[in-house]
Amino acid sequence: MIFPEIKSPTLLINKEKVDRNIKFMVKKAQKYNLQFRPHFKTHQSAEIGKWFRSHGVKQITVSSVKMAEYFAQNGWDDITIAFPLNIRELNNVIKLTKKIKLNVLISSVLAAKYFAANMKENISYFIKIDAGYGRAGIIPEKIKEIEQIIQTCNKNKSTTFKGFLSHFGNSYHAKNKNEVLKIYQSSKERLIKLKNHFLPSFPHLILSIGDTPSSTLSNDFQEIDEIRPGNFVYYDLMQHFIAVCTLDKIAVALACPVVDIYPERLELLVYGGAVHLSKEYTLDKQGNKVFGQMVTLNKTGWQIPDEQMYVSSISQEHGIVSVSPDFIKSVKIGDLIGILPVHSCLTADLMRQNGGVMYC
Amino acid sequence: MIFPEIKSPTLLINKEKVDRNIKFMVKKAQKYNLQFRPHFKTHQSAEIGKWFRSHGVKQITVSSVKMAEYFAQNGWDDITIAFPLNIRELNNVIKLTKKIKLNVLISSVLAAKYFAANMKENISYFIKIDAGYGRAGIIPEKIKEIEQIIQTCNKNKSTTFKGFLSHFGNSYHAKNKNEVLKIYQSSKERLIKLKNHFLPSFPHLILSIGDTPSSTLSNDFQEIDEIRPGNFVYYDLMQHFIAVCTLDKIAVALACPVVDIYPERLELLVYGGAVHLSKEYTLDKQGNKVFGQMVTLNKTGWQIPDEQMYVSSISQEHGIVSVSPDFIKSVKIGDLIGILPVHSCLTADLMRQNGGVMYC
Repeated sequence: MIFPEIKSPTLLINKEKVDRNIKFMVKKAQKYNLQFRPHFKTHQSAEIGKWFRSHGVKQITVSSVKMAEYFAQNGWDDITIAFPLNIRELNNVIKLTKKIKLNVLISSVLAAKYFAANMKENISYFIKIDAGYGRAGIIPEKIKEIEQIIQTCNKNKSTTFKGFLSHFGNSYHAKNKNEVLKIYQSSKERLIKLKNHFLPSFPHLILSIGDTPSSTLSNDFQEIDEIRPGNFVYYDLMQHFIAVCTLDKIAVALACPVVDIYPERLELLVYGGAVHLSKEYTLDKQGNKVFGQMVTLNKTGWQIPDEQMYVSSISQEHGIVSVSPDFIKSVKIGDLIGILPVHSCLTADLMRQNGGVMYC
Repeated sequence: MIFPEIKSPTLLINKEKVDRNIKFMVKKAQKYNLQFRPHFKTHQSAEIGKWFRSHGVKQITVSSVKMAEYFAQNGWDDITIAFPLNIRELNNVIKLTKKIKLNVLISSVLAAKYFAANMKENISYFIKIDAGYGRAGIIPEKIKEIEQIIQTCNKNKSTTFKGFLSHFGNSYHAKNKNEVLKIYQSSKERLIKLKNHFLPSFPHLILSIGDTPSSTLSNDFQEIDEIRPGNFVYYDLMQHFIAVCTLDKIAVALACPVVDIYPERLELLVYGGAVHLSKEYTLDKQGNKVFGQMVTLNKTGWQIPDEQMYVSSISQEHGIVSVSPDFIKSVKIGDLIGILPVHSCLTADLMRQNGGVMYC
């Protein structure tokens, strides 16, 4: 029996693949002379943090104050919280600034006013720029508003302007490599103009970008100072579908017990559902919803079968896997199959809480 | 400041609404002389369990062995695990049968063989019937296969056939009340035929059904013995969209801090994302994706505003809320807004782990 210790859905983390993914991005940052501040929201794990540290990483990004507190407790002392400052957590932020080097985000003039009025400890801030994603931050052409943010924050002498931070989240909705690079180029150009406008007054300002699709695919980082990709540590099916990674680079697979087999429907029922994988899906070329791609497990990990088999529907604890006629003949109740997740950040978050994690 | 103790996304549970929802279903079961075995997968909470107990509930349903273990530790001694038997957890199941009255599900002849070969303690089983949903179980017209399941299990004298269990999960995809009732009627008729076929040989067999949409809307439970709804304890937006509940019956709202305000886009950025609400969405009449509906908070809970405002996009920790011109004038950074979840089962599961829960 493969992995006899696994009774319920368990996230397998392949150390070799994780290491290779980290090494790739560390080298890329070195090659282009970029500060590398990986986003730890994907793994949220002190253990994986140690693996990053063994590759020389010393600065990190997180997406919540809680995550910053967790990693500060685990020895990380230079953290950017890449989420607009939540003033309800101001006391927690103030406590953290006493322990570690902390950067926060200011995303509007309104937010700057609250920040300047309430911040009491030395803290650096980035201005969050919306270079096309449309989620959070200020548009790079709004120079006057950006100046107003800096002036507003300047009234509080404990705050230091560090630079501009942007996340090209729209690259996740790209359909292929060209679309990713197009989004990257146009967003980057807008940011570089902004940087050049402020550089004379702030010669040390940092331009920080770096979603996983662009950081992986681009080879043009001129005038960029820092990258903050996160998802690349595990990659996932979504990244594979836009050709950001090959399937063999995906470093996590959810091991799921087979609980029933339906030969007539060519389907397996597995223990593994929305509380393990999340409800995130992607569409395959035929327009089918794909909640994960099946892999076969072996003694030391998993392998990608020749035929594409996938999770076709999902509920709270149930997963339905569409399989090939050959596979359905060989599989048995009680076997384990693996599922490459659509969105590894959400799956890792769920499995950190709802189940187990195993290194292989 | 409303709820000054809330710093980060927190699930508000309105005890009065929960109580009313429980009372409604308890009374309905009494009226139609049904055994009531509510599904506890929605709340997964010992505390909410106590509220059920105060209404006289003594038998429950769960969807995993872990959940059965948790509720057994919290004093529940009659539990159905409404998930096909996972033989990798057989030792845990055997341990549980020594402590409490446990029912498990058998969903195919193949599964029956494993069950009969491996079960060592006295245990009752339901046969899982697929009456149209197409997820798990055996089709009710396959009388021979069902007989074969019973015969197979019979070889192991520690097993007792208890009856047929079905979940009309397809009712969740209905668009309105009529569609729910149509699914309910046609599925029920197929099950009643099955019941009547086996009743002469098994005069005590139980027919157990009861998703939240049909249990709420139907008034025809003839020949049904047991209902197992779960979601009704909180209800949610999905149930509201198919007219199963009014908005004021939804008993949970995610309290989210407002971190930024974008008057030009008529949008708020709130701290509250996919790791709190889940990625589940529903479509409104205009075809917009809705990840949650906004409510305003007051000192003791929430109220439904006249204008419909909703979460229009979501990422790991961020939520974007589309609001009205009037509301955007009144809201301030640091305020809290409430979000009625699309799928309360998934939101409650996430908040049990990823954040806090507060009763109001």
